[in-house]
Amino acid sequence: MQTQKRIAVVGSGLVGSLLAIYLRKAGHIVHIYDRSPDIRQIQFSGRSINLAMSNRGWKALDNVNVGDAVREIAIPMDKRAIHLVDKLNFQNYGQEGECIYSISRGSLNRKMIDLAEAAGAEFFFEQKIWDVTLKEATLHIGETERGEWEEKKYDIVFGADGAFSRIRHRMQRQSMFNYSQEFLNIGYKELNIPANPDGSHKLDKNSFHIWPRGEYMLIALPNLDGSFTCTLFMPFEGENSFESLKDRKDVEAFFEKNFPDSIDVIPKLAEDFFENPTSTLVTMKCFPWTYKDKIALIGDACHAIVPFYGQGMNAGFEDISVLYEMIEKYGDDWVTIFSEYQKSRKPNADAIAELSYRNFLEMSSKTADDKFLLQKKIEKWFSDKHPEKWIPLYSRVTFSDRPYAEALAIGDYQNAIMEEVLKLENVEAIWNSEEVESKILDLLNKEATVQN
Amino acid sequence: MQTQKRIAVVGSGLVGSLLAIYLRKAGHIVHIYDRSPDIRQIQFSGRSINLAMSNRGWKALDNVNVGDAVREIAIPMDKRAIHLVDKLNFQNYGQEGECIYSISRGSLNRKMIDLAEAAGAEFFFEQKIWDVTLKEATLHIGETERGEWEEKKYDIVFGADGAFSRIRHRMQRQSMFNYSQEFLNIGYKELNIPANPDGSHKLDKNSFHIWPRGEYMLIALPNLDGSFTCTLFMPFEGENSFESLKDRKDVEAFFEKNFPDSIDVIPKLAEDFFENPTSTLVTMKCFPWTYKDKIALIGDACHAIVPFYGQGMNAGFEDISVLYEMIEKYGDDWVTIFSEYQKSRKPNADAIAELSYRNFLEMSSKTADDKFLLQKKIEKWFSDKHPEKWIPLYSRVTFSDRPYAEALAIGDYQNAIMEEVLKLENVEAIWNSEEVESKILDLLNKEATVQN
Repeated sequence: MQTQKRIAVVGSGLVGSLLAIYLRKAGHIVHIYDRSPDIRQIQFSGRSINLAMSNRGWKALDNVNVGDAVREIAIPMDKRAIHLVDKLNFQNYGQEGECIYSISRGSLNRKMIDLAEAAGAEFFFEQKIWDVTLKEATLHIGETERGEWEEKKYDIVFGADGAFSRIRHRMQRQSMFNYSQEFLNIGYKELNIPANPDGSHKLDKNSFHIWPRGEYMLIALPNLDGSFTCTLFMPFEGENSFESLKDRKDVEAFFEKNFPDSIDVIPKLAEDFFENPTSTLVTMKCFPWTYKDKIALIGDACHAIVPFYGQGMNAGFEDISVLYEMIEKYGDDWVTIFSEYQKSRKPNADAIAELSYRNFLEMSSKTADDKFLLQKKIEKWFSDKHPEKWIPLYSRVTFSDRPYAEALAIGDYQNAIMEEVLKLENVEAIWNSEEVESKILDLLNKEATVQN
Repeated sequence: MQTQKRIAVVGSGLVGSLLAIYLRKAGHIVHIYDRSPDIRQIQFSGRSINLAMSNRGWKALDNVNVGDAVREIAIPMDKRAIHLVDKLNFQNYGQEGECIYSISRGSLNRKMIDLAEAAGAEFFFEQKIWDVTLKEATLHIGETERGEWEEKKYDIVFGADGAFSRIRHRMQRQSMFNYSQEFLNIGYKELNIPANPDGSHKLDKNSFHIWPRGEYMLIALPNLDGSFTCTLFMPFEGENSFESLKDRKDVEAFFEKNFPDSIDVIPKLAEDFFENPTSTLVTMKCFPWTYKDKIALIGDACHAIVPFYGQGMNAGFEDISVLYEMIEKYGDDWVTIFSEYQKSRKPNADAIAELSYRNFLEMSSKTADDKFLLQKKIEKWFSDKHPEKWIPLYSRVTFSDRPYAEALAIGDYQNAIMEEVLKLENVEAIWNSEEVESKILDLLNKEATVQN
């Protein structure tokens, strides 16, 4: 057990709540602040994408025994259902039994706050933090940015306050703070597929549904109540864009032409489209993440990524796992805990940012490409035969807890090999032949020799 | 003549002052605000690098007839004086008569403010701008960030307030604003070579002096009073670093060992070293630079770069030239003036940022490398023979007003050619032979064919 500290966590989102549970486990006094009302008492919706919990997330939850409580609100998805204009394809995510889990953000957040309260963390909602004094770990709280502020002093402050973190905002104004925020030209909008009258799902419940159309795409993830949360990703401007869909007629014509099989299942298409906001997508990177033994950023507050690998929450939860490892290793030495935490996490946060950025192309275009599907099929087949020699990139990211940075590097290396394999004559016919197998083995050996 | 506007320029530095002169020329009411006291009434020094005015800067000055006033305080430098540990080399910057000009930042800033006042701009010093309302072009001014503020409304506000711009700070908090700041691990410190008792210079007056030592370097630029402003660039941490030089003895031993010929000319070495601050170097990029027809960023406020190409001020002055072109072209249509201005400048600002970042390596390492000096010699010789076929990169950046983005692209292409040329057998001996000439011509033709 560590020496007890008074710790403030700014942000009652998923990462803030789980962090509170870990800090309670380590014996600390934990106060969680949020500028918004208690999410358990309000309607939450209209601008969210369903979460896809995978291995890193479960590991962090199970380590404090809250995994099972979350499993109750999770729906396993073992495959992509790829809706082409004229047919439906399926692509398994991993080995038999390997799934990602669809969870609505609102449900999970409510559950996590309940669990953190049960663990003894105290929540303070509708408390707006405008600034933090880094050296003193002191929060400045008030109704408005220019009005009266109250000061709350702690031993340690965690900024779990998301991509537009106020805690980071203060750190950013220090010298030698590296920072970048880059918005995609693609926005997103939530739509809804309601349940059937009998409460069943209108589409296959255990699939991640995707309508890949190149520059834009539609996805749908299942909810417990039989509905699906859909998300349309599309450029803000240009030929097929949010800007180009000006009225009800435009939207309906666009969906009829491009997502014909969605028409019957999204009854309130135009209403949803014009009521729900169009949200932006940002990649944010920064360094350092910590200030002495006083302040640490965690989750989206220090590494906001685009959602195309489904790893945003999982990466934030893994931050907590690594932080806790450091707590167990370095005891009361918070300077070392924080510096080892950021040193361990920063390269992995950069790697998952890159992988997530690249994955838009995979989801929106490559899933509709026969060559890409063939590559995935060959990789899976070879991986089944030689599991010690080949873990596909998606599996390494999603079903393992190997570092993201390693996944990125090995993924690039595997891709170079597969490019050669796909050049083999008549590869479509002989994809599971001895010839292909020995070609891959050769290339792996050759590369290993070069590397040694 | 345009419709007269009330325009605020935030920042009375070099770019703010010159911009004011241009806006006066276009017939506007111009108020310039600065948080600091009037630089003409205070001692300015201790943390500056001398400026190197080149073609783009002169062009912007001459266009409003203030070039000659500035020439009075400028010293031409036609070459690098490269101080190796055991010898002194010279390297001309360009053709006969092509020079860059050393000017002290303080002197130039005082002069520019005088000139802007003479042009009818009004200055308000010690006025701290804390915020701006973008839609209303309204400045918020006050003693402290949390105290009472006064509002000043204008038609247009320019943010010429440097790398840590408050105007940009507000824009940054808008959605879809891309932003990055990245600090180098190298800092810098000002040192001084005083004049001889008779007022003459202790080193060659018409050279840019450089002591290239790989990870660190010393430079010296001449001043009118016979002194040189020296700047030591060095990592913050590590073997040869600011951190490693802890006391007088360390500093003196370091200079004796590494810059032996500087010892006699920097009499107050240790005093300067410990009195002057160690400053940081940042590359800052952002987009957009403008907000409707209300707000525009200019100079370092939208593209802060590291100083290794001597182009920071020149790039800022060129922003003004381009802005003025747009003013002449689009009259009272400030929405188009601003959008065309940022569209024209952004790629060039990115290019000079990249070139400046790369040039640290050129200055600190390559100038001490025989192969690099040979490459430059060959390029100069070939360029003299075929001026229409080859303008060396440095000349294109420094002595032309071709876009920086073009300079970056053509520079990379020329470098690829020179890599081939330097592989020729015995190239050191035959560097100015017909064989080398026709090799370069061949490579240029081959590349041209591929590109067509």
